Amino acid sequence: MSSPPSLADTTRGRILFGGDYNPEQWPEETWHDDIRLMKAAGVNSVTLGVFSWARIESRPGAREFGWLDRLMDLMHSHGIGVVLATPTAAPPAWLGRLHPDTLPRDEHGQVEWWGSRQHFSHSSATYRRYAAAITEDLAARYATHPALTMWHINNEYCTHDFGDEAAEAFRGWLRAKYATLDALNEAWGTAFWGQGYDSWGEILPARRTHYLKNPAQVLDFRRFTSGQLLGCYLLERDIVRRHTPQLPVTTNFMALFAGVDGWAWAPHTDAVSVDIYPDPKDPLGGQFNAMIGDLTRSQARGPWMVMEQAAGPVNFRGVNHPKPPGLNRLLSLQSVAHGADAICYFQWRQSRQGAEKFHSGMVSHAGAEGRTYQEVKQLGAELARLGPEVTGRHRPARIAVLHDWDAWWAGEQDGRLSRLVRYEEVLRAWHRALWEAHLATDFAHPEAELGHYAMVVVPHLYLLTDTAIEGLLAYVRDGGTLVCGFHTGAADADDRIRPGGMDERLRELFGIRTVHEWWPLDAGESVALDAPESVASGAFRGTLWSEELQIRPDADVLAAYKGGELDGLPAVLRKGRAWYLSTLPEPDALRELLAGAAAGAGVRQELAGLPAGVEAVRRGDLLFLLNHGREPVRVRVPGIHHDVLTGAAVRDRIELARYDVAVLKQ
Amino acid sequence: MSSPPSLADTTRGRILFGGDYNPEQWPEETWHDDIRLMKAAGVNSVTLGVFSWARIESRPGAREFGWLDRLMDLMHSHGIGVVLATPTAAPPAWLGRLHPDTLPRDEHGQVEWWGSRQHFSHSSATYRRYAAAITEDLAARYATHPALTMWHINNEYCTHDFGDEAAEAFRGWLRAKYATLDALNEAWGTAFWGQGYDSWGEILPARRTHYLKNPAQVLDFRRFTSGQLLGCYLLERDIVRRHTPQLPVTTNFMALFAGVDGWAWAPHTDAVSVDIYPDPKDPLGGQFNAMIGDLTRSQARGPWMVMEQAAGPVNFRGVNHPKPPGLNRLLSLQSVAHGADAICYFQWRQSRQGAEKFHSGMVSHAGAEGRTYQEVKQLGAELARLGPEVTGRHRPARIAVLHDWDAWWAGEQDGRLSRLVRYEEVLRAWHRALWEAHLATDFAHPEAELGHYAMVVVPHLYLLTDTAIEGLLAYVRDGGTLVCGFHTGAADADDRIRPGGMDERLRELFGIRTVHEWWPLDAGESVALDAPESVASGAFRGTLWSEELQIRPDADVLAAYKGGELDGLPAVLRKGRAWYLSTLPEPDALRELLAGAAAGAGVRQELAGLPAGVEAVRRGDLLFLLNHGREPVRVRVPGIHHDVLTGAAVRDRIELARYDVAVLKQ
Amino acid sequence: MSSPPSLADTTRGRILFGGDYNPEQWPEETWHDDIRLMKAAGVNSVTLGVFSWARIESRPGAREFGWLDRLMDLMHSHGIGVVLATPTAAPPAWLGRLHPDTLPRDEHGQVEWWGSRQHFSHSSATYRRYAAAITEDLAARYATHPALTMWHINNEYCTHDFGDEAAEAFRGWLRAKYATLDALNEAWGTAFWGQGYDSWGEILPARRTHYLKNPAQVLDFRRFTSGQLLGCYLLERDIVRRHTPQLPVTTNFMALFAGVDGWAWAPHTDAVSVDIYPDPKDPLGGQFNAMIGDLTRSQARGPWMVMEQAAGPVNFRGVNHPKPPGLNRLLSLQSVAHGADAICYFQWRQSRQGAEKFHSGMVSHAGAEGRTYQEVKQLGAELARLGPEVTGRHRPARIAVLHDWDAWWAGEQDGRLSRLVRYEEVLRAWHRALWEAHLATDFAHPEAELGHYAMVVVPHLYLLTDTAIEGLLAYVRDGGTLVCGFHTGAADADDRIRPGGMDERLRELFGIRTVHEWWPLDAGESVALDAPESVASGAFRGTLWSEELQIRPDADVLAAYKGGELDGLPAVLRKGRAWYLSTLPEPDALRELLAGAAAGAGVRQELAGLPAGVEAVRRGDLLFLLNHGREPVRVRVPGIHHDVLTGAAVRDRIELARYDVAVLKQ
Repeated sequence: MSSPPSLADTTRGRILFGGDYNPEQWPEETWHDDIRLMKAAGVNSVTLGVFSWARIESRPGAREFGWLDRLMDLMHSHGIGVVLATPTAAPPAWLGRLHPDTLPRDEHGQVEWWGSRQHFSHSSATYRRYAAAITEDLAARYATHPALTMWHINNEYCTHDFGDEAAEAFRGWLRAKYATLDALNEAWGTAFWGQGYDSWGEILPARRTHYLKNPAQVLDFRRFTSGQLLGCYLLERDIVRRHTPQLPVTTNFMALFAGVDGWAWAPHTDAVSVDIYPDPKDPLGGQFNAMIGDLTRSQARGPWMVMEQAAGPVNFRGVNHPKPPGLNRLLSLQSVAHGADAICYFQWRQSRQGAEKFHSGMVSHAGAEGRTYQEVKQLGAELARLGPEVTGRHRPARIAVLHDWDAWWAGEQDGRLSRLVRYEEVLRAWHRALWEAHLATDFAHPEAELGHYAMVVVPHLYLLTDTAIEGLLAYVRDGGTLVCGFHTGAADADDRIRPGGMDERLRELFGIRTVHEWWPLDAGESVALDAPESVASGAFRGTLWSEELQIRPDADVLAAYKGGELDGLPAVLRKGRAWYLSTLPEPDALRELLAGAAAGAGVRQELAGLPAGVEAVRRGDLLFLLNHGREPVRVRVPGIHHDVLTGAAVRDRIELARYDVAVLKQ
Repeated sequence: MSSPPSLADTTRGRILFGGDYNPEQWPEETWHDDIRLMKAAGVNSVTLGVFSWARIESRPGAREFGWLDRLMDLMHSHGIGVVLATPTAAPPAWLGRLHPDTLPRDEHGQVEWWGSRQHFSHSSATYRRYAAAITEDLAARYATHPALTMWHINNEYCTHDFGDEAAEAFRGWLRAKYATLDALNEAWGTAFWGQGYDSWGEILPARRTHYLKNPAQVLDFRRFTSGQLLGCYLLERDIVRRHTPQLPVTTNFMALFAGVDGWAWAPHTDAVSVDIYPDPKDPLGGQFNAMIGDLTRSQARGPWMVMEQAAGPVNFRGVNHPKPPGLNRLLSLQSVAHGADAICYFQWRQSRQGAEKFHSGMVSHAGAEGRTYQEVKQLGAELARLGPEVTGRHRPARIAVLHDWDAWWAGEQDGRLSRLVRYEEVLRAWHRALWEAHLATDFAHPEAELGHYAMVVVPHLYLLTDTAIEGLLAYVRDGGTLVCGFHTGAADADDRIRPGGMDERLRELFGIRTVHEWWPLDAGESVALDAPESVASGAFRGTLWSEELQIRPDADVLAAYKGGELDGLPAVLRKGRAWYLSTLPEPDALRELLAGAAAGAGVRQELAGLPAGVEAVRRGDLLFLLNHGREPVRVRVPGIHHDVLTGAAVRDRIELARYDVAVLKQ
Repeated sequence: MSSPPSLADTTRGRILFGGDYNPEQWPEETWHDDIRLMKAAGVNSVTLGVFSWARIESRPGAREFGWLDRLMDLMHSHGIGVVLATPTAAPPAWLGRLHPDTLPRDEHGQVEWWGSRQHFSHSSATYRRYAAAITEDLAARYATHPALTMWHINNEYCTHDFGDEAAEAFRGWLRAKYATLDALNEAWGTAFWGQGYDSWGEILPARRTHYLKNPAQVLDFRRFTSGQLLGCYLLERDIVRRHTPQLPVTTNFMALFAGVDGWAWAPHTDAVSVDIYPDPKDPLGGQFNAMIGDLTRSQARGPWMVMEQAAGPVNFRGVNHPKPPGLNRLLSLQSVAHGADAICYFQWRQSRQGAEKFHSGMVSHAGAEGRTYQEVKQLGAELARLGPEVTGRHRPARIAVLHDWDAWWAGEQDGRLSRLVRYEEVLRAWHRALWEAHLATDFAHPEAELGHYAMVVVPHLYLLTDTAIEGLLAYVRDGGTLVCGFHTGAADADDRIRPGGMDERLRELFGIRTVHEWWPLDAGESVALDAPESVASGAFRGTLWSEELQIRPDADVLAAYKGGELDGLPAVLRKGRAWYLSTLPEPDALRELLAGAAAGAGVRQELAGLPAGVEAVRRGDLLFLLNHGREPVRVRVPGIHHDVLTGAAVRDRIELARYDVAVLKQ
């Protein structure tokens, strides 16, 4: 018990396969049908109890565990492990009724009532007391149950609160951070618009105002909110850990959800799990899936869990598309390739009622004969075959993409230069470029140790701390290649613009003398760039942003603006191993730029000569080949391999049907 | 007095012609000018007293009836009948001030203040008490007045309330419906997201929540809201009926207004009246007008009233267009053709002040010499000629379009598969197809007796009760032709998805084995369909929706998807007399499909060989020919007729100028 | 001291050059750098103290003036004058906390909290008491300070309040206006929808309602709001005036801001100052700048101040563009040409923190070596050269554009005929036509004395008072040329539609017998017009609006509608010197129409034969030539001039680089 528990304690050589199971929505006769179908599909893990608070505690203090006892026993008797969830994401109606102080308020002061989910204030002492009590009793009751394999705390932490109790908590958080009001006034720049605070009690959450809010206040309020939610998590985690120190604890992240800082949370979980919902109709859905996998693996620093995905459509988009035949398998195996040791779903059986009755299940409304379940069954068999070959294995990458919630929060506020710049989209554009260049990629926090990477890219980190900047300087000094996107390093940790509009050390690094002005581009606008033939095919277009730079003599201009107000000015710079892109090149150009930089840094593609739409991923000693295209393709794979999924021998080449996957071993 | 009063008691062989008359907005000298112009235009009916509460009861308990006495007498002395309105749609300012509990709150808890209209909570006991009192006094005073011909209760019932008194009333409504909380929890599927209720007091209106609401709660809240408004209506209706049992009572419907279930209300009115506002610039405005007429006639089960239409522009659209010369006449005569025995307007004289000063009147701002009044005058003369020929006559139809507010409410919620699917638009697309195919059409509730129809079409009823399904099965079994649109029969009366995604009996009826997935289409997307030449010209495109179906051997595939993920799968099915369309065919194709099905069912067009844009409608022994086009046309009408409007003889053919109408009699 | 102070008391032969200076955001060592850069750039005026309330009164009653004393002394010692601002636009946080009654509420009842700026209710007695107290102490302290040159009250008055104290104030305002409730009921047309008021206490601000609000109530509430803000201004103005009767007082207008009636305010200021923020990427930004200048000069009846403009980008648009090289100079000199005697900026040094850290400064983030400051420096030198030549000089115009906030407020409400008609855009379209025709233009209130103008244009005044109409009639009678745009004169001072839809006297003036209907056009729609060759090249298109007119024999039809429902009807009329345009002609046509009318009225262009994009403006005996285009041009200027900026002699022609300016003197 000396080392903390981890995902491996639950997987034990198998890929976890299963999902959220909500049998309380069904008559008990359906449970037995469920077990039969689960066994047939190779399901080995279910998550129970998410949102079951009202079922367990139908009135204050009640404890109705009988149904859950039966389910735990049933699962155990069929050899299916249980990830047990604390039910605290959906308090019972009586809690809101008896304790209106538990209800969150939005920035306008409006209450978010019960009748949905997540109607709790992260700062409510009453909520926390009740949540702790039920968690305590749940943990005590099932700590020794043989079916229990892991704890799942709450669900998709994502709420906010701008009410009075949150205000008081915010003040406490600020006191702890700043100690003095002078320090706070300085950090928030309250001299602007005469916002100086003379007592802590004057400070408010980032409530609705007449005009633009103080950006540092908004930034701190987002930090506080993420921290308050983490506090809710830790409260429950500590309780279950006390009861079962040997079992891993997780909570399901929403990956690139703006509200929660995944880097700050991940170390507090024993297993990092994530919910992934690419749009099945997005032609780059595979890239999205890869990106979330890369990010989650980087947070986990090893194998991770797909806690939720959809076997078919979801129901939260404007138009919700099902997955065509093969796509669920493709994306699931892709996640395994990117390091997942668990492929789970929301949810096992599609609900007939409630707000998500159009969100798919592993067993859809069409039931066991439906295409969805039939494909799930096939996938289960393949995962069982793959399990011993991959679980616990490393998926290496020599490139890191820097990503930071603080920069996101500071940059994406009202009153910025361009509302068209959306952090997540810029991040995705850069990841896409690397993915399409067949370059394996990790994500990293800007203050992380980067020495083991051959190349580091910074798509767009408007805010960079001094520590991060010093880290980047050291990284390049020590031989690393750095490629940096537009409007990076403009602000410090308090969202204070750095003199010169970009940190002086970074300017020095890239060979920039002055940033005269930032020139955001309009919607649909692009700007021509002229470049030597060696870079991005000679000419390309930049989108979203441009900059009026004056460079130093030691910078090489790789591309210059052509036409427009910036005609002739430098656009893409390089000084030694440090590259700076003052615009967002269109996709092909960004891919070529990054591929060139990577080649210079000695990073090789996962496999040479891949056709478009085919992804190759190495994990352990396996090579995953994934056809994301709708047409069949032929892939060259020099040498002799065998396909772990089919057992077939593969000699130099392999055919992949549309959405098909091969997993090769030498 | 044994049979209840009806519209015929008011029309007595004439078409009612007139409108809302608000002389309190004008000096009394204008009244005499009004009378003169009314008489010249053939006006025989005015509605008095809508919104006159503050005029009658300027302070609590006051009763100022003198002005109304004078007006009633004036109308009577000029032979103009009065539809007298209860004034309860616009409480006086003092009511809200003294009794804030009478003010409605929206889902965010925000008050809707006075200063407009409809600022009353349907659930406020105080409001109801005051409304009943003034209705009582109004009815008592004018019960025996010789001008009085009909009662008009309130105006366009359309409000909501999410406040505390509404919450309490909702709980009472739910208790009456479900008796036990177990039944409610089961019907609402509260096991999902742990929403189980343990006491009635915990239940809320469908107030603002953090995420998606419980759809069954929303559905019941909409049913409740429609029912509460009906309760307001019945309260007043019962009062006036007690005073004048011989006079018909109505309230003006807004036809396809989502908030009020017209089927449930219609039986409680003695005359069904409706407000119709087609957009004058809508090239299919005539179809819209026909659709509202068909729906209202079906609710009335006989002659009905146009209570409000606009002689010129309205003022509630983004851009409000006037009616070009002839259009008001065309649409008015079209309504008569579709069964209307009353052609009334909001309002007689366009207001110079207030929120609707840009909403037209029969006398526009241009006054008596304005084109608007001149055309009104011509129309009045024609209606007088038509009256004896049409009032009380039947307008037969052999096709029924099924329409249901419950299905609308259940289907059109957040969290559905496609926000692009708008119930009203699908309904309209199907009615348009029948209208353009020159097929006379009724509307019917899905649980109605359908045996007398040769064909029944179901554009899109996501929710169908067991009773409705059994009815449809019996209808087809007994020889009826049923044509059914996409995503129909998916949910039961509680909005619970039926196993298999479509009721099993319906699947059996159409020859569907499994609905694997629903495939909603994106905005602007369409899908190709391949069909035998006999159907819809061989090939066409589907819009809005598609479905992944697996059929049984006994189903004929009339059209299959071509290309895309559903390539080769069946799209349009037929099994005997039951047709199923899993997409919304583009307009021409839907028209041809329905025309083909109707021909197979032995339904004939109203008149063969009609030019595009010309509508033929039979009512009684009259044939209305209406040219909705902007160009003159020649219409073949075999045999010899005479034109009731002009007196001219018509032999085999007739010319219609643009927007022109002929009413022929053999 | 007999004549009131004016801008000339501050300029004293120099153009004021400088801007808002917020040294409290910087360490004192930066102040000395600031002074050095100011002196180098020719800055002679700074505005201190805007938003400094919390700095001065950090807790109730505190007075911390030391920092301001030092700054005033510092400025004085370097010969830089100070415009001292009252700090009342941003109350300290403690005021809202101790006195929540000082916080404004929106129409939904939601509080606008502190944490931004302008979080005060104009009607709060508490706010006014505190604002008066600090103004008093500020004025007392600095009344005799030698640096003080002008007072600047508050900042950009723009707030609203719908709360209870505002409601009470609104009632008082209405009592003062109407004296009796009968008069109010009559003016508001409360007979419509039964809105009659029986006691003053029943009346509310224009709060959120169920449906359309009473338009006259909304109109009066907007008048009241502008008036309440003016009351706040006057409260402070009177205080500072008492201390320094010899110094001019101003507050910075936002020109075409809908919330504040500039005509009503201007007479209460000693100097009219304005904030001008054209979009640097707007190809007609120069026209916008000219328009604001023309309006402000007309309000000032002489020289005026640019109180705020941006040396680079702003931060309140969706995408915020910097100014390309030369544009800041071009627009600044253009303002001087249009009558400005002060060119000031928000702000001196770009803030590193706070909500406007992306709003530029005269010293940008790039500092003294940044392009922005370098250009500011060049401009400062040129303004110093120009000062003696222009300050106090007249910029004559023979054309007046009528503009009125009342008409704007009455016309731009919900429930109007077309939401596409935006007052400001119509006004701008007409000014653009005159500007592109090189015709010098004033603005005037519709009730102003117009006799000295050769031509008056009325782009779109939906509301016209009787006084205004009589004035226009007299103007034409006395020989003036009047060109009037669509939907003008439709309503009276109470927003009551005039019988006939246009005032009868105006119809008589233009030769209109009847306005049958208004025909607003759809988005993107235009209507063809046919015209004799002499007008607008024979044929053109109308946009936005059309009208169905019946004319009198004495009207000449200059253009008629062609095609559509109005085919053949008159579109542009002329009766003698009175023109009426019932649509908005496309830009070229409107320019030609107005140029033709102006020529007929004997108005000449500023300079003949100007190339496109070049503006010529005469002020005093200077001729400003401004190239708004991106290409160099050659301009013919007959005779011999010398260029005041360069000293060069100009003989018959001059070359202007892109964005270049020449200031010529004969």
